[in-house]
Amino acid sequence: MSKRTEIATLGEFGLIDHLTQRIQLKNATSIKGVGDDAAVLDYKDKQTLVTTDLLLEGIHFNLMYCPLKHLGYKAAVVNFSDIYAMNGTPKQITVSLGISKRFSVEDLESFYDGLQLACDIYGVDIVGGDTSASLTGMAISITCIGEAEKEKVVYRSGAKETDLICVSGDLGAAYMGLQLLERERQLFKGEKEFTPDFSGKEYILERQLKPEARKDIVEQLALAGIVPTAMIDVSDGLSSELLHISKQSNTGCRIYEERIPIDYQTAAMAEQFNMNLVTTALNGGEDYELLFTVPLTCHDKVSEMKGVKVIGHVTNASLGNYMVTRDGNEIELIAQGWNSLKE
Amino acid sequence: MSKRTEIATLGEFGLIDHLTQRIQLKNATSIKGVGDDAAVLDYKDKQTLVTTDLLLEGIHFNLMYCPLKHLGYKAAVVNFSDIYAMNGTPKQITVSLGISKRFSVEDLESFYDGLQLACDIYGVDIVGGDTSASLTGMAISITCIGEAEKEKVVYRSGAKETDLICVSGDLGAAYMGLQLLERERQLFKGEKEFTPDFSGKEYILERQLKPEARKDIVEQLALAGIVPTAMIDVSDGLSSELLHISKQSNTGCRIYEERIPIDYQTAAMAEQFNMNLVTTALNGGEDYELLFTVPLTCHDKVSEMKGVKVIGHVTNASLGNYMVTRDGNEIELIAQGWNSLKE
Repeated sequence: MSKRTEIATLGEFGLIDHLTQRIQLKNATSIKGVGDDAAVLDYKDKQTLVTTDLLLEGIHFNLMYCPLKHLGYKAAVVNFSDIYAMNGTPKQITVSLGISKRFSVEDLESFYDGLQLACDIYGVDIVGGDTSASLTGMAISITCIGEAEKEKVVYRSGAKETDLICVSGDLGAAYMGLQLLERERQLFKGEKEFTPDFSGKEYILERQLKPEARKDIVEQLALAGIVPTAMIDVSDGLSSELLHISKQSNTGCRIYEERIPIDYQTAAMAEQFNMNLVTTALNGGEDYELLFTVPLTCHDKVSEMKGVKVIGHVTNASLGNYMVTRDGNEIELIAQGWNSLKE
Repeated sequence: MSKRTEIATLGEFGLIDHLTQRIQLKNATSIKGVGDDAAVLDYKDKQTLVTTDLLLEGIHFNLMYCPLKHLGYKAAVVNFSDIYAMNGTPKQITVSLGISKRFSVEDLESFYDGLQLACDIYGVDIVGGDTSASLTGMAISITCIGEAEKEKVVYRSGAKETDLICVSGDLGAAYMGLQLLERERQLFKGEKEFTPDFSGKEYILERQLKPEARKDIVEQLALAGIVPTAMIDVSDGLSSELLHISKQSNTGCRIYEERIPIDYQTAAMAEQFNMNLVTTALNGGEDYELLFTVPLTCHDKVSEMKGVKVIGHVTNASLGNYMVTRDGNEIELIAQGWNSLKE
């Protein structure tokens, strides 16, 4: 059995010191990190981007199948994704944790290992946070601060008629990964010796458990000299994010079913589960891909970009938001979003 | 009975729109607030301060005696206090909420009313956040961003031997307010018609339920041309905060029992509860006063400042951290801090 050190042996200040002692600041903009009343940053002439996420056990993650190291990694990355979606670069995070006695010091070390790994890969500093007791489940709140040049910040509101709609990577995989994990968890119930069958499904599992943010896409756009007219990250599903852009840009859209990028593992899994593949890709969520619009003149440039697909175009608002199916029908896009409070 | 609108009638996006629609940005540094992947701020040549706090129901607050409007006010103010403790000015907050079905839309409106009131009084913008379901209690995570001129940021680490130790306001009142509320809650149990007896105890209740951050002290210091050598806000108790300054400044301290500012309501309540008054003032916590050190040459200036008291001086680290009692004995200062995880 692995080592278990009770949190009580360290106490509050001891625990924070223990978890944060290995942190080394690497960004020139991080003037002062953990250990004072506030972190101090210096962004000089760049603009500051701030985003925050609250993750609660049982709602956003299930520790039955989400290892704490992966959870730490994912919790950081989903915040980086929001900064990239502004065409910015994440630079710092603060991390607040609510934890109960059932967690050991080693558990929290694993969580911090995941956080730190993500921060090392994406070049981000952990500059502050708060650790406190929780009466029930684990609560994780991360705030990410990033920078962008003033003229290069991309909002959701800048899409124009005739702009091309582009998306990175592929969609629906993380959602199918979650369905698979849930199925295995149900099967596992009551069985002592159970080995879940994950072979050939590694990609969709990784998309669910250890997603990446599209730093590479933001870098490619910069290299190509493209500043998108609008951008958002796909966290609630393609459909929902398209509607955000349309609403805030006062535009409409047409996307083409045949252009929506879907991995074969996602398709195979949807078939096994007897689920509609396109619905999965439109509404699955947790893809953390970038959805953006560019002027028509950028067509050749974006077509050449690795991992980017043109899936449709921006229209006048009066034309609504539709997906054109393979057989030429038009289906209206609807936001599914999150509705945990309805259940 | 007051109106109760179920959150489910609005849905996620509807709820966020509803709660944030009245928000108007007032600071020139707030470029873009709620409604995109991240908020956009522009601090130009000033440094950026970031602090964050996670408040969990049952640990940090009890809705039995803490009205939601007060909770919203307090949740904002305790973060402002951290920014003032860096000698900065709070400018923006992001607010993440985890809520269960037992809360109505009206409940959340009350919470936001409290937040907004605090933001109006202190000149702060709400620029982002996240609202999600919670399986159990309420979770509140607030991140506050503020600014300071580069040369005027005050850390915990700058105290020097012979510096004067100053504290604002008075100590121990919030803690005694909490004791009173807890007593009345115990008495209330099982009783249908119960009117708690709070007359003559308004000050300690207000200190607990609706604390203020010491904006005025930071302004007075600026007017007097004083940049403290070290500063911290008193959230975990005077004793604990003095030890933070000593540890980070590599110094020691002597404070004088007779100099510790205590309100008469605090003293009366401690007497009723048969509690040691000085222990209460040293370890009570949640005072949100400012504890700071200034060079000896500032003696006359700080002595004249309203609401500031000199309580001791900084010594060489080898002399340790002690309180000199009224009868001339020396008692070593110990950090009590938070130890909810020990229970």
